[in-house]
Amino acid sequence: MTINMVAHGINTVWVLLAAALVFFMEAGFAMLEAGFIRAKNSLNIIMKVLIDCCSGLLGYWLIGFGLMYGVDKLGIFGTSGFLAKSAMSNLPWLAQFGLPVEVYWMFQAAFAVAVATIVSGAVAERMKFLPYMIFSFMATAFIYPIAGHLIWNPGGIFYKMGMLDFAGSAAVHAVGGWASLAAVIVLGPRIGKYKKDGTANVIPAHSMPLAALGAFILWFGWFGFNPGSALNAFGQGGSIAHVVVATNLAAAAGGLLSALFTQVKYGKVDASMTINGALAGLVAITAGCAYVSLTSAVIIGAIAGVLVVVAVETIDKFRADDPVGAIAVHGVCGSFGALAVGLFASKAVNSSGANGLFSGGGLHLLGVQALGLVTVSVWAFGTTFILFKIMKAIVGIRIGRDEEIEGTDMSEHGMRAYAQTTIDDGIVMEDDGGNSFKFESKAETFKQ
Amino acid sequence: MTINMVAHGINTVWVLLAAALVFFMEAGFAMLEAGFIRAKNSLNIIMKVLIDCCSGLLGYWLIGFGLMYGVDKLGIFGTSGFLAKSAMSNLPWLAQFGLPVEVYWMFQAAFAVAVATIVSGAVAERMKFLPYMIFSFMATAFIYPIAGHLIWNPGGIFYKMGMLDFAGSAAVHAVGGWASLAAVIVLGPRIGKYKKDGTANVIPAHSMPLAALGAFILWFGWFGFNPGSALNAFGQGGSIAHVVVATNLAAAAGGLLSALFTQVKYGKVDASMTINGALAGLVAITAGCAYVSLTSAVIIGAIAGVLVVVAVETIDKFRADDPVGAIAVHGVCGSFGALAVGLFASKAVNSSGANGLFSGGGLHLLGVQALGLVTVSVWAFGTTFILFKIMKAIVGIRIGRDEEIEGTDMSEHGMRAYAQTTIDDGIVMEDDGGNSFKFESKAETFKQ
Amino acid sequence: MTINMVAHGINTVWVLLAAALVFFMEAGFAMLEAGFIRAKNSLNIIMKVLIDCCSGLLGYWLIGFGLMYGVDKLGIFGTSGFLAKSAMSNLPWLAQFGLPVEVYWMFQAAFAVAVATIVSGAVAERMKFLPYMIFSFMATAFIYPIAGHLIWNPGGIFYKMGMLDFAGSAAVHAVGGWASLAAVIVLGPRIGKYKKDGTANVIPAHSMPLAALGAFILWFGWFGFNPGSALNAFGQGGSIAHVVVATNLAAAAGGLLSALFTQVKYGKVDASMTINGALAGLVAITAGCAYVSLTSAVIIGAIAGVLVVVAVETIDKFRADDPVGAIAVHGVCGSFGALAVGLFASKAVNSSGANGLFSGGGLHLLGVQALGLVTVSVWAFGTTFILFKIMKAIVGIRIGRDEEIEGTDMSEHGMRAYAQTTIDDGIVMEDDGGNSFKFESKAETFKQ
Repeated sequence: MTINMVAHGINTVWVLLAAALVFFMEAGFAMLEAGFIRAKNSLNIIMKVLIDCCSGLLGYWLIGFGLMYGVDKLGIFGTSGFLAKSAMSNLPWLAQFGLPVEVYWMFQAAFAVAVATIVSGAVAERMKFLPYMIFSFMATAFIYPIAGHLIWNPGGIFYKMGMLDFAGSAAVHAVGGWASLAAVIVLGPRIGKYKKDGTANVIPAHSMPLAALGAFILWFGWFGFNPGSALNAFGQGGSIAHVVVATNLAAAAGGLLSALFTQVKYGKVDASMTINGALAGLVAITAGCAYVSLTSAVIIGAIAGVLVVVAVETIDKFRADDPVGAIAVHGVCGSFGALAVGLFASKAVNSSGANGLFSGGGLHLLGVQALGLVTVSVWAFGTTFILFKIMKAIVGIRIGRDEEIEGTDMSEHGMRAYAQTTIDDGIVMEDDGGNSFKFESKAETFKQ
Repeated sequence: MTINMVAHGINTVWVLLAAALVFFMEAGFAMLEAGFIRAKNSLNIIMKVLIDCCSGLLGYWLIGFGLMYGVDKLGIFGTSGFLAKSAMSNLPWLAQFGLPVEVYWMFQAAFAVAVATIVSGAVAERMKFLPYMIFSFMATAFIYPIAGHLIWNPGGIFYKMGMLDFAGSAAVHAVGGWASLAAVIVLGPRIGKYKKDGTANVIPAHSMPLAALGAFILWFGWFGFNPGSALNAFGQGGSIAHVVVATNLAAAAGGLLSALFTQVKYGKVDASMTINGALAGLVAITAGCAYVSLTSAVIIGAIAGVLVVVAVETIDKFRADDPVGAIAVHGVCGSFGALAVGLFASKAVNSSGANGLFSGGGLHLLGVQALGLVTVSVWAFGTTFILFKIMKAIVGIRIGRDEEIEGTDMSEHGMRAYAQTTIDDGIVMEDDGGNSFKFESKAETFKQ
Repeated sequence: MTINMVAHGINTVWVLLAAALVFFMEAGFAMLEAGFIRAKNSLNIIMKVLIDCCSGLLGYWLIGFGLMYGVDKLGIFGTSGFLAKSAMSNLPWLAQFGLPVEVYWMFQAAFAVAVATIVSGAVAERMKFLPYMIFSFMATAFIYPIAGHLIWNPGGIFYKMGMLDFAGSAAVHAVGGWASLAAVIVLGPRIGKYKKDGTANVIPAHSMPLAALGAFILWFGWFGFNPGSALNAFGQGGSIAHVVVATNLAAAAGGLLSALFTQVKYGKVDASMTINGALAGLVAITAGCAYVSLTSAVIIGAIAGVLVVVAVETIDKFRADDPVGAIAVHGVCGSFGALAVGLFASKAVNSSGANGLFSGGGLHLLGVQALGLVTVSVWAFGTTFILFKIMKAIVGIRIGRDEEIEGTDMSEHGMRAYAQTTIDDGIVMEDDGGNSFKFESKAETFKQ
């Protein structure tokens, strides 16, 4: 055993465990989204997240990974690495860090699944299941991989320009967020969400504990998402130590500022906004976590925490009905995070990076960040818009009015998320002695 | 510090963290099982899982580990290693990978607890708590360790024959699943589950979000369960990189196929089945994850995803009342997974393994797998059957009819999983000023 | 790359992942506490835990870490390391294990947040949000850091005396527990909790599944909390292998003994107590996990499992209203755990430690443990008491009577944890065609 082999073993373990953490974020998304919407649609959204894991992993394995990380063509797409079989010698970091292709695939696949899942929240409570499956496959096989290629493939256009997007404020979050906006526009708002005068009805979260659990799981997953993106344990290209602290401080600042801002604005600490504020901080620092100082991380997180509140309100004014705030959190704050690198990046923090505007680097980096961000955002918005339009024309994307009123859980899965599970459930049962009887509860107050 | 010491440090950290992930699967089991059954029994089942952790860890420490991994006697049981104290020089991999006995114990103990917990789901809604505690102790101290010894102890009969069961489709899942079948047969079905004509009443899941959360946690835990079984980070005996991808692709294929199969069969994507399909894929790939190609992993997972649906229906026809599908997921798909190694294993994937039927290895490996599988399955079924019969005769295993109708939460623990927690809960309270009053809610719609 | 660099890479990955596990315990605390209390206050308590993460991380970053681990002054407080910027050469283990300051900060910060969160449970259902935020900041910036300095800073008074508190039964749990007692005394009991004769009304847990999920997450987090405190993977100062097993066996013994003890005492296995029993075992072994034998760990856990039941009842008799048992679990069992080191510690287990009374070390270690424990307990109790008194006088700490009856979720956040999410929710909506209508459910039994 050589020293390098040992070092490679560490990197392998590290990235594998980081992949596990990122994958576990699917549980977080599922609970967050289910909690934020009505009970009658909560099972359906969880199933959509689960199907992201299933068809998403397969789509990324069959096609997506190759398009994203295969040997570059035209700076836009890859042509090898399908089925995670190739040695991927075009990715120098695999040899440098001694990462097996399969571990690298696993980490990247968890990211791909996350992009699809971001959209699941925005289209909640009204989208059919089967077209969602198609979208989920396309997002992981095609839409996200091209965006990722542009930024993260060594041959990608923006990679070559020097765009810095450490763990994907642009490549993952902005892509997911702006795809969400396109989906929501084609799909239209939920019945009853907006009045004729454009003002919105509040449709309450059915379980805030579930939503908060989801947020905690997501935060936990970010311990893999951001530092795992270093792909090694030895500080090459970005110190995992710095990244993890920057990530956590930004989240803390985001949550705190959302709490304080809503306290001032509404007179109470808004629970949903505080949850989304912490997530906004996480999303916004995702691009810059390796490139900005801890103080800058706090500032970025704090701005995101206010921005997300303003964004949620603004998006609602445009009647873009996003039940969980995915566009605000991922689209707006992801975009902000990508741009923030152009402002706050400092070679004093990470010599592999570049100086942003505030570190004397001028407007160059900011320009590159903006160009890359706008391109992948337009790409994600455009392809999703077209895909949804096509699906709408051919198979239909929206459930019927009666089904929407009754809820997607019944219409799409034939069951409810929460059964009336008291024993006096009105079902006349026949026991194995052939006696017919109807259960009746002795405990009358027992209603779940 | 030498290179070997450093390598051993990595292996130690890796197996310890994998053990944590496997242990966390207990949370997954608890939520999955609780969600799939009625609210009135949901606390009881969670308590059974918690008690698995308690008496199971102690049982495996006192007795089980020694029986399973101690110095072999007759190819059947071990005679050293009790209390995790011995150096265990009979296990060559401990020295090879530099694993402290205690870390190895922790990883194995989490597996032992899982076996007991598989059964907790099958006996849900009708089994008494104290005999369950006895079973849980016996399963981790005796039933599982002997089965595990046969397959995984270097002196075990099937280990010597060359049986390949990387992380335990047979040793863990088939054992747990067929023990569940025995338990269910002795215990009998829940009141009202079957009509005289043999057809089943549907008893709905009380909380699908909880069940799905459990499934996500289980999937997350499998990032430790399967790759952790390599016991090292350096690809010796099985590459953790390959294992983790095979595991995830099989899960994805299992979930996707269950979704599509139920869509075709029932006209809707069945939520419970899709959840169980993903788990079926995980269970089925557990034996072969290090020995089969990624494409084979997808095929194995896909077959398991269909198989589990058929199995659930078939088991119900035989009036074996398994409220959570444990027999189908763990017994049937675990057995399939163990056999699938005999079909799909390829030395091209893992030179430490063997070739299965489809790789030109003929029927030899398949025969060994079948022999080992049948033996441990009969062992698990038989010992559980006898233990349940003895407990039935002496202490009783089933709660009374009235208690079953009211629910095990009240009969066994004197409380409900979900309290009527509105403030107008009918309780007349006396405050500290001595005034007697009854709370009344101002918000009449507030019912949880 | 040198061998040392590689070893340092492992330690860095290990401590970072341990930090993630400890941080994830916040999800555990949130779910445990929310589940144990009434639904009407469950969102508020979750928000308090979330705000601990936010203002706590920032407070520990700005001030707390420096006070705790900076260059020592008078044995009481630190004077460097603020903003996690200094190289911290006063902490010899950072250089020895090659830990970046930032990773060390992250691990320690997760501990600081936990201390504040322990108190959140005790003050549940009646404390205002904004003074809680102040407390949370002060606890992580000031109260805990000083206590931690005394025990864990190389210049701290009790560190120099040889106090052994591996992962903080005293420094974390006793501090959090006795701070809770002070908070509860100033705050007073919930309306209706105690009758004039001093006996207590039972206020039921609104969701035991949520509470149990929290406990499982906490147990999972302890895989980082205790072994992570070794700060290295190579057994220097304490073997992570031994620590993880001792920790799990103590938890198992705690849970089992609580179950058996309540079975004997009440005739049923008490669910809340069994959950708290497992946690009590974890808390009690936290000081000694690296210093006592596995058998001693089982004994310590078992004693804690009984002690917590007795403590909960005793504390209730003194009308200290602690809705989740935080004082019993963390205060009483943390104190017991710190003292138990003085009894059970053995140099045969860890030569870096000392012998306790039962290993022939006489009363010296027990005396040191007691002195350190009493000091930090009095410190935590006293400062919290004073802080709560000051806040009570200036901003008020308790919500009004009507608000308490309606619930803190409404009074503090203007929303409920669980919405009435049936579709016939009484809201008259106006759709985008301008039609006014009121949803009515077709499924009349659908009430969540």
